[in-house]
Amino acid sequence: MLNVVTKDEAVEIVKSNSLTDLKTEKVNIDNALFRILAEDIVSVEDIPSFDRSTVDGFAVKAADTFGAGNAIPAQLEIVGEILMGEKAGFTLENGQCAKISTGGMLPKGADAAVMVEHTDCDNSLCLVYKAVSPNENVTKKGDDISVGETALKKGTKITSAEIGVLSALGIYEVPVFKKPVIAVISTGDEITDGTPEDGQIRDVNTNLLSSAITEYGCEVYKYGAVRDNKDEIKNALVTCLEKADAVIVSGGSSAGARDMTVDIIDELGTAYFHGIAMKPGKPTIFGTVLNKPVFGLPGHPLAAYFVFRLVVAEYIRKMLSLPADKPISHGVLKENIPSNHGREEYICIKQTDNGETVPVHTKSGIISVLGEADGFIKITRNTEGLPKGTTVEIFEL
Amino acid sequence: MLNVVTKDEAVEIVKSNSLTDLKTEKVNIDNALFRILAEDIVSVEDIPSFDRSTVDGFAVKAADTFGAGNAIPAQLEIVGEILMGEKAGFTLENGQCAKISTGGMLPKGADAAVMVEHTDCDNSLCLVYKAVSPNENVTKKGDDISVGETALKKGTKITSAEIGVLSALGIYEVPVFKKPVIAVISTGDEITDGTPEDGQIRDVNTNLLSSAITEYGCEVYKYGAVRDNKDEIKNALVTCLEKADAVIVSGGSSAGARDMTVDIIDELGTAYFHGIAMKPGKPTIFGTVLNKPVFGLPGHPLAAYFVFRLVVAEYIRKMLSLPADKPISHGVLKENIPSNHGREEYICIKQTDNGETVPVHTKSGIISVLGEADGFIKITRNTEGLPKGTTVEIFEL
Repeated sequence: MLNVVTKDEAVEIVKSNSLTDLKTEKVNIDNALFRILAEDIVSVEDIPSFDRSTVDGFAVKAADTFGAGNAIPAQLEIVGEILMGEKAGFTLENGQCAKISTGGMLPKGADAAVMVEHTDCDNSLCLVYKAVSPNENVTKKGDDISVGETALKKGTKITSAEIGVLSALGIYEVPVFKKPVIAVISTGDEITDGTPEDGQIRDVNTNLLSSAITEYGCEVYKYGAVRDNKDEIKNALVTCLEKADAVIVSGGSSAGARDMTVDIIDELGTAYFHGIAMKPGKPTIFGTVLNKPVFGLPGHPLAAYFVFRLVVAEYIRKMLSLPADKPISHGVLKENIPSNHGREEYICIKQTDNGETVPVHTKSGIISVLGEADGFIKITRNTEGLPKGTTVEIFEL
Repeated sequence: MLNVVTKDEAVEIVKSNSLTDLKTEKVNIDNALFRILAEDIVSVEDIPSFDRSTVDGFAVKAADTFGAGNAIPAQLEIVGEILMGEKAGFTLENGQCAKISTGGMLPKGADAAVMVEHTDCDNSLCLVYKAVSPNENVTKKGDDISVGETALKKGTKITSAEIGVLSALGIYEVPVFKKPVIAVISTGDEITDGTPEDGQIRDVNTNLLSSAITEYGCEVYKYGAVRDNKDEIKNALVTCLEKADAVIVSGGSSAGARDMTVDIIDELGTAYFHGIAMKPGKPTIFGTVLNKPVFGLPGHPLAAYFVFRLVVAEYIRKMLSLPADKPISHGVLKENIPSNHGREEYICIKQTDNGETVPVHTKSGIISVLGEADGFIKITRNTEGLPKGTTVEIFEL
């Protein structure tokens, strides 16, 4: 009989069995959204690549404006206009200025820009009513990203912000991890494809876990539902091991069926633990077959989801070099929350409009609770409940 | 000359020009992740559809266990076993129990379940060492979702939690909004497709805004970059209006080019405002052409991003019935943040590990700041700066 492990022990065992040589590929930036960067992006350029004006107005030598004010403007000679996208064909000498737009390249000799609102000009003469200091209203070459700087880190999930940075650097073929494939098998004699009759239920876990796998940046191989029959489960597992990098078996619901999954893992490979001291999620199994991780998750959808979120997701984070799981916010409990010593507990919560944190009360915690919750909190296994008023870390579901 | 409006006025104008008759479609649940629900999902079934045991053990009449304890167990006759997925063929009479697994259907006559750990049995007799109350260890029919209950609301973004709920209800063809199409045109004489030469930059906004549009659940029509030429911009706009439900024109960078966009909108339709009292983001234009919204966004990527996030996104929220923008968390400022009276300001921030909120300091705020920030805060236009120690609302970028 295998031991029950703590959640932290489970995570360590699972992570130590993660793929370490995940393949990478280059994808066009149009397809890079939500993929995971496989390399640090180190800039080989300065961005911007030249000193730019941040205002519409005039490029100047700052020293020429020193002392200028509403009463005594500086008088500068307009020697030209800088066109967008072009380099000025002239150099500013003392007492000279040039018309410039936001984003325009400062001409040689200029070190600042004055806003058009602070000037009064005709075609050749510009009165400047406000002094500027050197570099004022200017973005210097390399100010945004400089040569050699790590602009983005390996393991970053690419959102529009990263797409912007990659575009600025001209990286249109983006190095990302190939999506690991995770297979999902749902087991249970009570599962039906059709309209459930007495005693039967629909398969929630296949779709629930498949979409969670997708959200975590992996590809899904959906095997579907099988009955609590050792040969059927074994066949499903063997097929999935051929198609995927890891396999999740959820259910079976009967006590005997859970033992089947352990027995199959033991026959084909190595089982590491049977049971995690967490709630929900206790009846969880982990082992490897052909060096590939096999997760046995509870049949109860909420429990399966939490084991996915807290254990399987750690395996995915490790593979994809994703950053550690962090709370998304903090909250203050509006009521006491009981829990049992000896296991880590997870409570779905809602944030009220005035910032209070309340547990989601439902008559059952099957699946609807997930749709209602804003996040969840953890109660560590050495704690017996949390009193009202406790500041808690809130994690994303 | 059009007026400068406040950000709230801008949002109202933009929302009042949102499409109100967005088409809907049904997509298979396999393709529903991240789509937006077009209808409330009202359950026509009870979930679960029968009373289920939440433990492995025995279905009982609770009253038969009253008073049972370690010293004096209740003695019950085992009359059968409930198989998963099946309805028992018998009814429990007083003094009887039946073997049941987690998720099994309670037989007629039973109103509770006892855990196998609290029993000691042979084939026909079961000693129960712990009393249970009626409904203990049972999920009643409809406890998770009951007939007539709104399980999910119109405008909900479908994540794995919602996929789970839809699966439980057997809704495999999901009513979602057709993705509105938003076109993106980037303008500017300084924009180049190739390696930038002096004065030139790459087009950041096309990809940045396109991915933001995708993140908000819309489809993109990428027109690409055009020069600051009235005919070119006009042609681009006309093409985009044929292909899309709304058009974003970002840039041009020169003062004259910004007027071009307003002039074109005015020629072809109606311009509503030119300038929003927000920072970054002031040089923003809005109008309608052929009853379709046309947004003129600043060329500066960070400014364009904030206008998208705070103005264009509100238009999208309205169309897709998405919930109001809410802060993702709160933080306490670690330093004073200056701002100017009269306009709403947005500051990119980072959350430190000990929960403090610090502004992201970069030499320029072009684009890299977006990659570094954890979120942003707002400083309302009637406030002059925020002192250290202020509790602030943090919004997702």
